[in-house]
Amino acid sequence: MRAHIVHAHPEENSFTAAMRDTAAEELRAMGHEVTISDLYAMKFNPVLSRDDFTELRRPEHLAYTAEQRNAWYKGHLAPDIKAEADLTLAADLLVLTFPVYWFGMPAIMKGWVDRIFLSGPFYTGAAQYGAAGMKGKRALVAASLGGREHMFGPRGLHGELTTGMLRHLLWGSLGVVGYDVVEPYFAFHAPFVDAAERQAMLDRLRGHVRQVENLPVLPMPNLANFDEKFVPKA
Amino acid sequence: MRAHIVHAHPEENSFTAAMRDTAAEELRAMGHEVTISDLYAMKFNPVLSRDDFTELRRPEHLAYTAEQRNAWYKGHLAPDIKAEADLTLAADLLVLTFPVYWFGMPAIMKGWVDRIFLSGPFYTGAAQYGAAGMKGKRALVAASLGGREHMFGPRGLHGELTTGMLRHLLWGSLGVVGYDVVEPYFAFHAPFVDAAERQAMLDRLRGHVRQVENLPVLPMPNLANFDEKFVPKA
Repeated sequence: MRAHIVHAHPEENSFTAAMRDTAAEELRAMGHEVTISDLYAMKFNPVLSRDDFTELRRPEHLAYTAEQRNAWYKGHLAPDIKAEADLTLAADLLVLTFPVYWFGMPAIMKGWVDRIFLSGPFYTGAAQYGAAGMKGKRALVAASLGGREHMFGPRGLHGELTTGMLRHLLWGSLGVVGYDVVEPYFAFHAPFVDAAERQAMLDRLRGHVRQVENLPVLPMPNLANFDEKFVPKA
Repeated sequence: MRAHIVHAHPEENSFTAAMRDTAAEELRAMGHEVTISDLYAMKFNPVLSRDDFTELRRPEHLAYTAEQRNAWYKGHLAPDIKAEADLTLAADLLVLTFPVYWFGMPAIMKGWVDRIFLSGPFYTGAAQYGAAGMKGKRALVAASLGGREHMFGPRGLHGELTTGMLRHLLWGSLGVVGYDVVEPYFAFHAPFVDAAERQAMLDRLRGHVRQVENLPVLPMPNLANFDEKFVPKA
């Protein structure tokens, strides 16, 4: 198996960086090949624009997803996009390690999704969820949070974390492009816990990664319930 | 009333830019003062880092939210953050105009939230939702989408849009800092509709903005149901 880890944290000595290293170590110990993209270290550009294409099909009006498809098939993608798309497409497992900011990814990683999940190889308007390009691959989110676990759940202050606050990522991004999205791993209250608890959180992550091929997969929409324009069937 | 419009779209001739202009025109016609931050035009930096502070309280280990509080009160914020925070704090109404990418904001606007919603003036760990800094102000999301309206709702492919896919933004970001978040405005299938429908969508937006002080507000968590650490009361 080949795994691609995409990591975003502004500091190299962070707990989240230790999460990245723990995941990479465990995957290698399991015999998998691992590539890592450390977005801050790469100074990854998260801001999509017409500069993402070396040639435009229709320069007078930018239709970004149409340009993505054209550029992918004609070889007109900016080199940083092509390199990341190739690593991601070559991997059977995508792992995202990041600190949750405002119930989403840091902007540098949101922009990785904006620019790398290309219309064409990853999904199209007609090919989403189980019909999309990443079908048969797995995705694992391993994230740290400042909040405590009791703030989430049906009676929690913020409601459900996996199915609520992070629905946009787990379903709306990873799910839409076709990944089998496994149960995510969360390190709660990470900036505030002591060294023993941090080690315990890394040990739990190691166990989670070891089980990645057997972890429960989040239930995605059943395409049989929709027609070819995604209108719900009666 | 004073309104601050934050806008993100890579192209100036876009439908989303027309949404920004329509909202600004209508607010001015209502007699309000309007400021606009066009994040692409400003080349806004969306990537938070230790460079966001001209002096660090604890340089050996970056605790970002603690540094935000310290820098806000001591005057150590980077000038681009200070300028945007001042505009946002001075406004009674915040309007966000953007195209929905992956069920969230474009990365350049996600990074605006990451860097501008400062721990201290906007919220703290102990002051969230109705107890947070933006209490008494309103926020309006006006967004364009590629998807069609029938893809959303209880039986739709993507589930609920407002309470589901965009929960992270409407509740988890605007709600957490204390805004009264009004019913959002969506322009569905925007890149694909004809000129008449685009004009109709702008007219509907104008009517929505005209009603901004009377629009229904999304229900936020009731803090009376939680103790001071946000543990749910029995």
